[in-house]
Amino acid sequence: MKRQLLFPATAMAILLAATAASAETAPVSAATEECLGCHATLHPGIVADWEQSRHARVSPAEGQAVQEAGRRVSATEIPDGLRHTTVGCAECHTARGDRHADTFEHNGYEIHVVVSPDDCAACHPVERGQYDGNLMAHAYANLADNPLYAMLERTISGAVTLQGGRMDFAPPDDLTRADACFHCHGTRLAVAGRQTRDTDFGELQFPVISGWPNNGVGRINLDGSLGSCTSCHTRHRFSIALARKPETCQQCHVGPDVPVYKVYAASKHGNIYTAMKADWDFEAVPWTAGTDFAAPTCAACHVSLVVDPEGQILNQRSHRMNDRLAWRQFGLIYAHAHPLSADTTQIRNQDGLALPTSFDGTPAETFLIDANEQAARRRAMTRTCRACHDPSWIDGHFQRYENTLVTTNAAVRSATQIMQRIWKDGLADPVNPFDESVERRWSDAWLFYANATRFSAAMAGGGDYGVFADGRYQFSQAIIDLDDWFRFRSAKK
Amino acid sequence: MKRQLLFPATAMAILLAATAASAETAPVSAATEECLGCHATLHPGIVADWEQSRHARVSPAEGQAVQEAGRRVSATEIPDGLRHTTVGCAECHTARGDRHADTFEHNGYEIHVVVSPDDCAACHPVERGQYDGNLMAHAYANLADNPLYAMLERTISGAVTLQGGRMDFAPPDDLTRADACFHCHGTRLAVAGRQTRDTDFGELQFPVISGWPNNGVGRINLDGSLGSCTSCHTRHRFSIALARKPETCQQCHVGPDVPVYKVYAASKHGNIYTAMKADWDFEAVPWTAGTDFAAPTCAACHVSLVVDPEGQILNQRSHRMNDRLAWRQFGLIYAHAHPLSADTTQIRNQDGLALPTSFDGTPAETFLIDANEQAARRRAMTRTCRACHDPSWIDGHFQRYENTLVTTNAAVRSATQIMQRIWKDGLADPVNPFDESVERRWSDAWLFYANATRFSAAMAGGGDYGVFADGRYQFSQAIIDLDDWFRFRSAKK
Amino acid sequence: MKRQLLFPATAMAILLAATAASAETAPVSAATEECLGCHATLHPGIVADWEQSRHARVSPAEGQAVQEAGRRVSATEIPDGLRHTTVGCAECHTARGDRHADTFEHNGYEIHVVVSPDDCAACHPVERGQYDGNLMAHAYANLADNPLYAMLERTISGAVTLQGGRMDFAPPDDLTRADACFHCHGTRLAVAGRQTRDTDFGELQFPVISGWPNNGVGRINLDGSLGSCTSCHTRHRFSIALARKPETCQQCHVGPDVPVYKVYAASKHGNIYTAMKADWDFEAVPWTAGTDFAAPTCAACHVSLVVDPEGQILNQRSHRMNDRLAWRQFGLIYAHAHPLSADTTQIRNQDGLALPTSFDGTPAETFLIDANEQAARRRAMTRTCRACHDPSWIDGHFQRYENTLVTTNAAVRSATQIMQRIWKDGLADPVNPFDESVERRWSDAWLFYANATRFSAAMAGGGDYGVFADGRYQFSQAIIDLDDWFRFRSAKK
Repeated sequence: MKRQLLFPATAMAILLAATAASAETAPVSAATEECLGCHATLHPGIVADWEQSRHARVSPAEGQAVQEAGRRVSATEIPDGLRHTTVGCAECHTARGDRHADTFEHNGYEIHVVVSPDDCAACHPVERGQYDGNLMAHAYANLADNPLYAMLERTISGAVTLQGGRMDFAPPDDLTRADACFHCHGTRLAVAGRQTRDTDFGELQFPVISGWPNNGVGRINLDGSLGSCTSCHTRHRFSIALARKPETCQQCHVGPDVPVYKVYAASKHGNIYTAMKADWDFEAVPWTAGTDFAAPTCAACHVSLVVDPEGQILNQRSHRMNDRLAWRQFGLIYAHAHPLSADTTQIRNQDGLALPTSFDGTPAETFLIDANEQAARRRAMTRTCRACHDPSWIDGHFQRYENTLVTTNAAVRSATQIMQRIWKDGLADPVNPFDESVERRWSDAWLFYANATRFSAAMAGGGDYGVFADGRYQFSQAIIDLDDWFRFRSAKK
Repeated sequence: MKRQLLFPATAMAILLAATAASAETAPVSAATEECLGCHATLHPGIVADWEQSRHARVSPAEGQAVQEAGRRVSATEIPDGLRHTTVGCAECHTARGDRHADTFEHNGYEIHVVVSPDDCAACHPVERGQYDGNLMAHAYANLADNPLYAMLERTISGAVTLQGGRMDFAPPDDLTRADACFHCHGTRLAVAGRQTRDTDFGELQFPVISGWPNNGVGRINLDGSLGSCTSCHTRHRFSIALARKPETCQQCHVGPDVPVYKVYAASKHGNIYTAMKADWDFEAVPWTAGTDFAAPTCAACHVSLVVDPEGQILNQRSHRMNDRLAWRQFGLIYAHAHPLSADTTQIRNQDGLALPTSFDGTPAETFLIDANEQAARRRAMTRTCRACHDPSWIDGHFQRYENTLVTTNAAVRSATQIMQRIWKDGLADPVNPFDESVERRWSDAWLFYANATRFSAAMAGGGDYGVFADGRYQFSQAIIDLDDWFRFRSAKK
Repeated sequence: MKRQLLFPATAMAILLAATAASAETAPVSAATEECLGCHATLHPGIVADWEQSRHARVSPAEGQAVQEAGRRVSATEIPDGLRHTTVGCAECHTARGDRHADTFEHNGYEIHVVVSPDDCAACHPVERGQYDGNLMAHAYANLADNPLYAMLERTISGAVTLQGGRMDFAPPDDLTRADACFHCHGTRLAVAGRQTRDTDFGELQFPVISGWPNNGVGRINLDGSLGSCTSCHTRHRFSIALARKPETCQQCHVGPDVPVYKVYAASKHGNIYTAMKADWDFEAVPWTAGTDFAAPTCAACHVSLVVDPEGQILNQRSHRMNDRLAWRQFGLIYAHAHPLSADTTQIRNQDGLALPTSFDGTPAETFLIDANEQAARRRAMTRTCRACHDPSWIDGHFQRYENTLVTTNAAVRSATQIMQRIWKDGLADPVNPFDESVERRWSDAWLFYANATRFSAAMAGGGDYGVFADGRYQFSQAIIDLDDWFRFRSAKK
């Protein structure tokens, strides 16, 4: 008996449609030609990137013509001026000129420097809309406008002062903020003035933009929109392959606070990815589990439209990555059900603090998704798991993972009880809970090690990473140190 | 004068034989066809993995027919029912059904979920036998049944309790153990009951297996065998290429306790691997130094059958990785000659503790290999080195490495003398030597930093890794901290 | 309108010339044939490396014939004996025999084991000369002959002693030094004697070389020259591709002292490199931004001859990597203008210490480059940036980076003021400023965390790496700990 063919006609049809669309190249607009006339020499690197991009080959109209699952253009209507040329310099940098505070006259064109998600929305409105429902889009305000986190930021990035023998932290300057937390969270861009520069083409005037450059996920753009598509779809190639690779996520997720890249690299999934990826197709849309890739990357589980080899959809694309996240495991200070709203600045715990849980672990329930929504999101996540794993494997994994959320939360509670006793006994000052040596040891426990232990459990990276690299060994050690500090300092008070 | 040809006839013959064997595809068994009928749709990812595997192309009989050095099948006799079809679902998941506690009736077949090394032994008995002589195969009991290590595990993974102001650790629950140490060491699998699930094909009954999923190296299987071949030969592609790449070892060797992946990545060998591997052949059997690969991976030194370009064998394949290991450098608490038996639970040091050395560094000699065996293993290891290095290079390297074992042991001895004084003076309680702040600092010294320094020396990763990343800087710092703690606490007692 | 062709004739000409040069293989010299006769069997790995090298295909005369920007051979005159054969074993290992202390008679040839930069200078004199002006070439003496750094080295690598209850560090033995700091800095090689070995070809005598093996960047060779080209151009392939990949730099730059590899990997440039490098050409000379590579590696910014797609030179090749470095950010103990001379042993700060700054941050100006030279070097660096970035992007980046130098220096100053108070109050002994617990915490601050924060800013790796991985969180924590230690110990004195 002959083995069954795993590539049926429907999958083939999608494949052919995608290939056909890229076989010929759409024309470049006259405006973009004019840009390229100078900029191909001035910035050959980014022009070469663009030339290798899909934007340089396919017009929006051709993109729209692709069949359902292979389609990358989600707009149903695209302005006539954009439909039939490639998506080049002018198409993006002159879009919606009146909405951008950095628009300036440049060789007869109204150009803006910073392209925003709302510009991209001309062709990709669904993705742009989804992204706005994402915690990441709100990463600027979620940090900057939370009084508690602002205290943490000040004791991390602030200027050390020594006055009368006391050490303190002054608020960080704007350049430091842009270099530190807001590098990833996104800066607030603003036009600070105009500048005349001598160029190869004579004197020209340009806007001066404070907070620039920046590609942070929650950047506040000069048209008021939030986010930066180039965080993941790096300019000017805007490659889906790049966005699907875990190194893209590593940019902001490599420290012990959210060590997902390190956990992934040490996991079986990461092992397969690193060893086998040379043979995978990271460009295919839709993305076929088993034939295009043999182990998930970050994108496969959290974002991508994934199909099986017969073309059946396993999971729909979503740029609201929350859609498959039942928990927010990044402890503040405990792991908790995911926030309801992507804007977390309104969250108040039972003690009135801007935290999703209280210090005793009680969740701020009104602001978090309920158990039904959690179940729905877990189901959504496991649809991708099922490409390779049976229900007993998946259930065993999730049972273990959710148990680790419970036990790490319990250990954080113990650590916090010790910390609260330290505050109560006057051995530390709770006004800023992050600026003393013992408070930092407590922060290490929940911010780094409880958290890393959870990520390790979530991604089955377990083992060595979750125990010795940044995990349970360090987590228990931080609590032991806290206890030792308390008992010794109490005795010596 | 024309340069001598480096690919003589013998190497060519081996190459041709291997290629010929894979040119045609053996038939799939009727039973496996039936499995694929449903499972190709249910779990397309793992079926695609299998389809790309050698198991899906070559029958055991064809595998047996390959010439000596190119042969991957070590069995001399293979049951008739397996000889002439590919190695598919049914061949493994119905093998030795009566020996597996998880065997259940499934659409007319007696299936077991967990395939064990004893199942693989039908075709690979030599490898399976070698592996059992490996410390890894015994990783479950070597940890779980050692009372001292059990104390360490409890203070790493246990539940923090606070009673009457005293902190303690309750033993970890089973889910935590499976998520932590036993993720790599392997869980003890057990059938906990049966479960009926609604499936796409109606109601079906399945076994419920506690400790599942797990691919730990010392897993206790449902047929009583030890280990999991899929730790390294990841299911269901069972790729030799994957097992030969260092990212596979990274899964369990990335923390500072045994940071071999990090050391390798920072070493010259790792540098060459990362930069050049795209041009290497990771599938070739035998594996030819110089033409298939230009720098060793973990497997090349510890496991693989390596030949020179003339086909001469440099080192035989061995799945008893100990064969080339003179030392066990992972300090417990000192580096020492390798244990004689892969089962280390019987080791007792001169003080009666289940440790390969005493706290003063005296080795538990009766339980460790002698100097002759050490010399033989070092010679075995260096046979691979000689593919690229002359004796003066190799001798210089090993002299330096063994000196580092001596000096790191001496420094651990000093640290332990301070720790013993702390215990003697009543500043810490030696009953559990791992659960107090100062004891953990002592553990950092030998478990992480002495150890990382040694791995760095062993793999010539030296330099920055062994000094600043997780090495001598941190090692000396831990001892300085220990000394500071002792002197200050003594004075303040 | 048709898009402008980005590969004009000049670029094509260079490309064709380079290709033509490698199409045929130059003859192997008779001497090298004789070497290969035995060594192809003895060390097949390194012979295979050489066979795949450009040295095994192209004669120096052919190399010289290549057009300007594609030329790799910088010598204008090459000795006749070397001109027309490939560059094989004998060409390097018999060169300048009378200058090498390890030269010995070997089957009728005068061979030396250790090939030095002065040997390579026969064909590559410009690169060899540039390299000597590099801090790296002087890495041995810059560490070994600086009394302050020698103290640091002793407390890192030295032997721990416990006498009368006091811990101290004896100087490290030579094997330890070679395994630790001098693995990267380079060892001082010396002929320690001669040794007779039984070989496959009978008894033969060889030199015994202390400090061998070593490929450190500042190795002191047996002809008195400094450095080792094989640090980056790994023997025996001497691949430009390997040298251009960041994993090569990782060997010595992976720890928190100079974590450039980790920062690069987490940066946008590193993200693009890792995800896209499979499509790049790492062999092309010159190296074309945009077409050969889409994001810079370490080499692209610091070393390589980079052109734009029209063949215009963006930056000249320089093996004096300092040429584009305005600052030395590696704090000793502050970031400061780059040293004037590559030999830093003569530097004295205003307090007479062998440091480029004083403890209060005052630079030792006489020994450092001035503001004009800094500006020139920054301009040189930014010529590569301009391949992809406009002036506002570049200026914004450098403004942020230099601000981070100022703020991290200010924080180090605060930490040092606390440390100086600790010394003044007799709570620690300043004779060796690195051998007490609190002194090490101070060292952590400037050596690891201030430094990592700066590298993160320099390479726009910012974000998570520079905050949480090894950055501002840990930097501020070290200073908080120092302050806590001081206040508590003062109170308890």
